[in-house]
Amino acid sequence: MGPPTTPQTHEPHKPSEKSVSDAAKLLLNEAIADKLNIKDVSSSKTFRIADLGCSLGPNTFFVVQNILEGVELKYQSQGLNSPTPEFQVFFNDHASNDFNTLFRSLPVDKQYYVAGVPGSFYSGLFPCASLHFVHSSFALHWLSKVPKEVVEKSSPAWNKGRIHYSNAGNEVVKAYSTQYAMDMGCFLHARAQEMVCGGLMVVIVPARPNKVPHSQAIANLMFDILGSCLMDMAKKGIVEEEKVDSFNIPIYYASPQELEAAIYKNGYFSIERMENLPCVTTHDNLSKAKLFALSMRAGMEGFIKEQFGPEIVDELFDSFRKKLEEASSIYDSGKALYLFVLLKRKIN
Amino acid sequence: MGPPTTPQTHEPHKPSEKSVSDAAKLLLNEAIADKLNIKDVSSSKTFRIADLGCSLGPNTFFVVQNILEGVELKYQSQGLNSPTPEFQVFFNDHASNDFNTLFRSLPVDKQYYVAGVPGSFYSGLFPCASLHFVHSSFALHWLSKVPKEVVEKSSPAWNKGRIHYSNAGNEVVKAYSTQYAMDMGCFLHARAQEMVCGGLMVVIVPARPNKVPHSQAIANLMFDILGSCLMDMAKKGIVEEEKVDSFNIPIYYASPQELEAAIYKNGYFSIERMENLPCVTTHDNLSKAKLFALSMRAGMEGFIKEQFGPEIVDELFDSFRKKLEEASSIYDSGKALYLFVLLKRKIN
Repeated sequence: MGPPTTPQTHEPHKPSEKSVSDAAKLLLNEAIADKLNIKDVSSSKTFRIADLGCSLGPNTFFVVQNILEGVELKYQSQGLNSPTPEFQVFFNDHASNDFNTLFRSLPVDKQYYVAGVPGSFYSGLFPCASLHFVHSSFALHWLSKVPKEVVEKSSPAWNKGRIHYSNAGNEVVKAYSTQYAMDMGCFLHARAQEMVCGGLMVVIVPARPNKVPHSQAIANLMFDILGSCLMDMAKKGIVEEEKVDSFNIPIYYASPQELEAAIYKNGYFSIERMENLPCVTTHDNLSKAKLFALSMRAGMEGFIKEQFGPEIVDELFDSFRKKLEEASSIYDSGKALYLFVLLKRKIN
Repeated sequence: MGPPTTPQTHEPHKPSEKSVSDAAKLLLNEAIADKLNIKDVSSSKTFRIADLGCSLGPNTFFVVQNILEGVELKYQSQGLNSPTPEFQVFFNDHASNDFNTLFRSLPVDKQYYVAGVPGSFYSGLFPCASLHFVHSSFALHWLSKVPKEVVEKSSPAWNKGRIHYSNAGNEVVKAYSTQYAMDMGCFLHARAQEMVCGGLMVVIVPARPNKVPHSQAIANLMFDILGSCLMDMAKKGIVEEEKVDSFNIPIYYASPQELEAAIYKNGYFSIERMENLPCVTTHDNLSKAKLFALSMRAGMEGFIKEQFGPEIVDELFDSFRKKLEEASSIYDSGKALYLFVLLKRKIN
C-alpha cells in the first residue's frame, strides 16, 4: 500500500508468469475447503468479503469470484441447514485509486453486492466484527509511508545517494524494518477488530527468504539499479542530486520470520498455513530484463514523475533496462520469494 | 437518477436558495427524534445509512452528518443501555458517477466508515435487512430510462418535436407516468428487502402539486422552453430535427398522489410524514432567469452534448436564458413543489 499517488498492486518486480496466481488460486480454494468453519460465520445472513489493495481490476474480480465459489461449495458440503448467504464484497484501496475505472469494469454477471472502500488498510476501515473473509494480494509490502528518519539530513539514518534500504547502512535498514513492524501492527490490530471470530484472511506478498541478506533479495537489487541510474543522471546534471537524496521508495520486503513475529505479537490470529508460491519462468535473461523494466516502469512511473518531473522518465527506464540486461546474472543469484499466508481470526 | 452519463443531483430547476435544504434539515431532525425507535434498530452494533443518488458531494456529507448526529442524540435520550453504535455510510450513485472526486473530498473528521456503492437504485444494491436509514434527495424524479414508446416512430406515443411530456399528447404522458410507476415499484421493492423493520427512509423530490396539469408545473415549462430552443435550432439547420425527435429527458414530476399510490401498492412502508418544503425566494424575475438557465445547463449539458455534440451548447443555453427572461411571467403562474416524505419500513 503505497503513498496516495501510487496504485498498490503495480508490483515493480512481479513476474508476468501465471505460476504465482495459479498456485495462489489453488491454495485459496484449499484454505476455504479445509479451514472455513461455516458454524463460525453463519450467524450473519450476509457473508462479507474484503479485498484490501484491490487496485483497478480485473485481478480483484477473479479473486473475489474464486472466494465466492469456494464459500458456496463449503456451505453446500457443510450445510447444517444454513441457506447459502448473500455476498457483499468490499473493494478497498487508497482514496486516490481509480475507483471510477474499477466500478465501470465490474463483471456484469456478478452474484454479489458491491461496495468500494477508500482509505489506508493500516487504519480501521470496517465496523467491528463485520468481515468474514479478507484477502490482500501484492499490497502489504508497501509501507504506510517513507520512514521519516531516512529523509532527515541530521539523522544517522539519512539515506543519501540511494532510493531504498538495500546496501544502505544499518540505520536505514532499521528505520525501514521498524516502520514495517509498526505498519503490520496497525494492519493486524484493525483486522482483528473488523473480522468475525473464525474468519479467514489470505495474504499474498513478495518477501525476502529467511536469513538472506537484504542486498541479495532480487527486488532490492532492482531498486539498487534504479537508484544508480538516478545517481548517474544526477552526475550528468539531468536531475538534482538533492532530489535523489530525498527520494525513497516506501516498500519493504519482510522475511517470513518478521511477518510471523508481527502476527504473534498481535495475538488475535492463528497461522493456518504459510508457504512459498512457486515461480517458474521459461524466459531467458534478456526477456526477463525487458519484462522487469516494463514492470518497474508501470509501478514506479507515477512516483518518479512526482519527484523528478515527467521529462526524465523515458531516459531513466531506458538506462534501467540496459543496466538490467548487462547485469543479467542477478536472476541467478538474486533471491525471490512470494509468500502465501492463511490466518484465522481466533475465537475470543 | 438519470442515464449513466448524467449526475443525478444536478437538478435543472433547483432553486439556489437555502430555504429548501434548511427546511429539509429541520424535518430530518424531527423525523429521527420522533419516529426512530432505537429498540427496532439496536439489534445490530452497526447503524448503516445509505444516501441514494449522492452525486459528488459536498451536500451528501452534510446530510449524512446530520443523520448521524440525530441518531446519536436519539440513542442517548432513548438509550435503554444500548451503547452508541458504529456508523457505516454507503454513498450510492450510478457507476458513471465520479466516485474518485467523492472519495477524495470526504470530510477528514468523519466519524463513520465509508463505502461507495455503484449502481441504479431501481435495482437491489444491498444485502437483505442491512440498512437502518435511507436517504435520497433530488434523485427520484429521474426515471431509470426514457420510456421506449416515446422514441418509436410507429408508436402513438412517439414524441416528435418535443423533448419532454409536457404539452405532449396523452400517450406520451401515459408512457412517462407508467415508467414512473414501474420505477417506483422497483425502488420500493428493493428498499423493502434491504431495510430493517422499523428503519426510516427520507425522500426529498421535486414534484407536481396534486390536480395541477403537467403543463403548469414550472419544471415542465422549463423543459418546454428548452425544447422550443432546440426546435428553433433545427429550423435553422443547426441541429437535425430527427435528433430532437429522438431526444427525451427521462425525468418525471409525480404528484404526491402518484407517489402515495406507489407506496400503498408496495405495502411495506408506512407514510409517517409527507409535506411541502417551503421555497421562499427574494430574487427578481430577471435574476431568476439567469439562475435557472445556469442550473439547467449544469444539469443538462452532458445530455445535450451526447446527443447533439458540444458545439451547440453555448448557443442553446444562451437562447434558453433569453427566452426565460422574456417569459418571466412563468415564475408567477408556474407551480413548483418540493416534497419531503418520511417512510418507515413496517414491522413484518
